[in-house]
Amino acid sequence: MKFTINRSAFIAKLNDVLRAISSKTTIPILTGLKIVVTPQDVTLTGSDADITIQTVLSSNDDTFGLTVEQPGEIVLPARFFSEIVKKLPDDQVTIEISDGFQAQITSGSASFTINGQDANNYPRLPEIETTDTVKLAGDVFKEIIGQTVIAVSSQESRPILTGVHFVLEGNHLLSVATDSHRLAQRKVELPDAIEQRYDVIIPGKSLTELSRMIGDSSDPVELRISENQVLFNLGDTWFYSRLLEGNYPETSRLIPDSSETTAELNASAFLSSIERASLLSHESRNNVVKLSLNPADNVAKISGNSPDVGNVEEDIAVSSLDGEELEISFNPDYMKDALRSFGQSEIKISFTSALRPFILVPTENEDNFVQLITPVRTY
Amino acid sequence: MKFTINRSAFIAKLNDVLRAISSKTTIPILTGLKIVVTPQDVTLTGSDADITIQTVLSSNDDTFGLTVEQPGEIVLPARFFSEIVKKLPDDQVTIEISDGFQAQITSGSASFTINGQDANNYPRLPEIETTDTVKLAGDVFKEIIGQTVIAVSSQESRPILTGVHFVLEGNHLLSVATDSHRLAQRKVELPDAIEQRYDVIIPGKSLTELSRMIGDSSDPVELRISENQVLFNLGDTWFYSRLLEGNYPETSRLIPDSSETTAELNASAFLSSIERASLLSHESRNNVVKLSLNPADNVAKISGNSPDVGNVEEDIAVSSLDGEELEISFNPDYMKDALRSFGQSEIKISFTSALRPFILVPTENEDNFVQLITPVRTY
Repeated sequence: MKFTINRSAFIAKLNDVLRAISSKTTIPILTGLKIVVTPQDVTLTGSDADITIQTVLSSNDDTFGLTVEQPGEIVLPARFFSEIVKKLPDDQVTIEISDGFQAQITSGSASFTINGQDANNYPRLPEIETTDTVKLAGDVFKEIIGQTVIAVSSQESRPILTGVHFVLEGNHLLSVATDSHRLAQRKVELPDAIEQRYDVIIPGKSLTELSRMIGDSSDPVELRISENQVLFNLGDTWFYSRLLEGNYPETSRLIPDSSETTAELNASAFLSSIERASLLSHESRNNVVKLSLNPADNVAKISGNSPDVGNVEEDIAVSSLDGEELEISFNPDYMKDALRSFGQSEIKISFTSALRPFILVPTENEDNFVQLITPVRTY
Repeated sequence: MKFTINRSAFIAKLNDVLRAISSKTTIPILTGLKIVVTPQDVTLTGSDADITIQTVLSSNDDTFGLTVEQPGEIVLPARFFSEIVKKLPDDQVTIEISDGFQAQITSGSASFTINGQDANNYPRLPEIETTDTVKLAGDVFKEIIGQTVIAVSSQESRPILTGVHFVLEGNHLLSVATDSHRLAQRKVELPDAIEQRYDVIIPGKSLTELSRMIGDSSDPVELRISENQVLFNLGDTWFYSRLLEGNYPETSRLIPDSSETTAELNASAFLSSIERASLLSHESRNNVVKLSLNPADNVAKISGNSPDVGNVEEDIAVSSLDGEELEISFNPDYMKDALRSFGQSEIKISFTSALRPFILVPTENEDNFVQLITPVRTY
């Protein structure tokens, strides 16, 4: 095996594959990067058993300046190998299997020899047999992930809640996440209707990594779903994730469809107020802030109190306030996560009572995106 | 006590004083920020008992937009107070002692009340009785710190070596630091001769914090030295540090004055080579790289070897190479620190033998700046 490649283009692809590689793995060979060289291209593979990322560097793509002198394959220690490649002096790097499983890395006047492993011992990729694909614009998919993954549970006690529930049917995509204290739900219309119905739970961690790879372009992301794996295709990169097994709890009934008090306000201005109030609540034992709404006087107020450290009070600017008077307490960190997912939008918050979950929706698009938060009982 | 001030200018000064305040202190009131308000100005003080920083915000300085309504003083929880001020909504902030030791912080529609402490319980500042001052340009002083503090010991077993030794006499300043494996020495001519001789050891940690406050300007820094304290004055900010007690070891004899092999090369290019070689040495048990110099063939080579991970070899570009053939091994991390202190300069490295310390000096200015490194015996 021997090839020469443009170092900076190689590093960019290496970084993509490194996302999947963890130094904490129970399967030692997975700390390695698998390199397969054919006369036409170089394929890099990294995996932590949950996520597998594979990318192809083609000699037809000029950005790589790839010259293959001899095909072959090897597994190299991923972190160490990438540190070396990143520090090399020259614009180009040559990687050659010199002897057994030893790789020689040459660039300018520097030459490293590092010990690798037999690529035959690297686990095989999961097989995705279906040919049914779902297409979505990259930026839309990234938005869906950002809006739902915040509500995923970080506790392993109910593993199913560490994933986002996706239901795809016809040209509808529904994604829901909940950690049982809050819930996020986003609906999207697919550009092309699909034949089969899919009901899958994708680990939140996989979606977060995938989201970082998508970038900000609207280039399409293609999904293929099998019984226990999902495969995302982003141009010349393939991202595999295992699916979570089990039935996701029924969530549609959790979202209230009526309200007693509503407030319309700017998500980003309200976020700043909550951030201030949470400075104080973070210092106290119970991390809670109180929202007081008085529609008759058109006054909305956020407050927090902790006998040890002090108290905070702030008037909130609202564009409208309707319904019953209400005092409600909640965890400001849940509110911050929810508000961030709305960006600069105007939102509507709808409450039923001080102890019932309340919902946040964008004023412009009430039906497709909902954040739900369960209040905290303070007496 | 009540005053109103421009929030961003206040934050800048607050950040300066916060450098001295640690949340890990055995004296609880030192987690606080002391605020003293007179009709003319506001003085902020922070301290961790080793370092004390005091800054004065004058109502004559327009950048502060300071209006004092009522003088007074208080100690407020430093970290919490600064987080609040940084998050407030308006350009201005008003701070008022409302009741006992409670402070009210108001800005725009937000209002915080936080519990403070009686300023009478705050420790008094160290007294510096001398009026003899030493003046140095800020950028020069920052350079001296950067060049010497790298060789300070991080081990508390010999506390005296955790400081930099300063000797000031006439118009000479000598600064030396060593952790017994390496040594850094810098000499500077003072703009004005001083009357008294000073021989003091300033804690490395104090110098590092001071250096961050100096900025990049050549505005003068004034030093005043008493028996167990040094005071640095930077415009409207005073920085106090305790001195280390004891006698600093005699270091002048450690620097060899003859050599058998010399190499001249570019510090920054050599640094890149050492950084690459250290990638390998960091993976192995003994963190060592080998430099091979062959003046007869004009060849300089850096290499490293670790049976478990692999090996590295690189030719080094030298502008001159003279004397005896030599192979010498050293800790690459010491070499990296030393090389960084030379920036982009051409340097000369002088060796006596494989087991004797060697020195690095700038080619342009051999007498005023020396880095010394002790080699590692590898057999």
